[in-house]
Amino acid sequence: MNNKELQVALASKLGISQSETEELLQATINALIEKLSENKSVSIHGFGSFEVREKNERLTVNPLTKERSIVPAKKALAFKSSTVYKEKIKELPRYE
Amino acid sequence: MNNKELQVALASKLGISQSETEELLQATINALIEKLSENKSVSIHGFGSFEVREKNERLTVNPLTKERSIVPAKKALAFKSSTVYKEKIKELPRYE
Repeated sequence: MNNKELQVALASKLGISQSETEELLQATINALIEKLSENKSVSIHGFGSFEVREKNERLTVNPLTKERSIVPAKKALAFKSSTVYKEKIKELPRYE
Repeated sequence: MNNKELQVALASKLGISQSETEELLQATINALIEKLSENKSVSIHGFGSFEVREKNERLTVNPLTKERSIVPAKKALAFKSSTVYKEKIKELPRYE
């Protein structure tokens, strides 16, 4: 499902127009990104938490050429689902 | 940052009350969870995508007792940040 379909689902849930929903969704994501950019973790009750983690620089080896190169230290966004939601998702029926 | 603080940030962004924001945020999360429960991946433009992935059953060994046990197959939520956002986050200033 893409952005558009999420908006449609959300608009019908909230009983508001799709363009209003688009604005809301964008504002939510922006608020999230803003907080994360300040190196703050963001947790959403019943769903999970987002956190910017620092990854150390590391060495990689190209398996064909055996050439070594350094991947510089960087930051990456990590998501961890909440314990409650994790338990719920575990039991979902198997997808055929 | 917890739910409450996200609501405060979002309420001021949207110029609506905090209880309205709470409702919105909950509806957004519910729409997300609903779609994910149908084994659909959900992607949010400029942020990333969520997907329920199947994990095979696996064997663990307790390092103290050497006892082996089987972790049953389960489902787990995976998040992948979008390429654009990944590049942005990489360059965040180092947290002191």
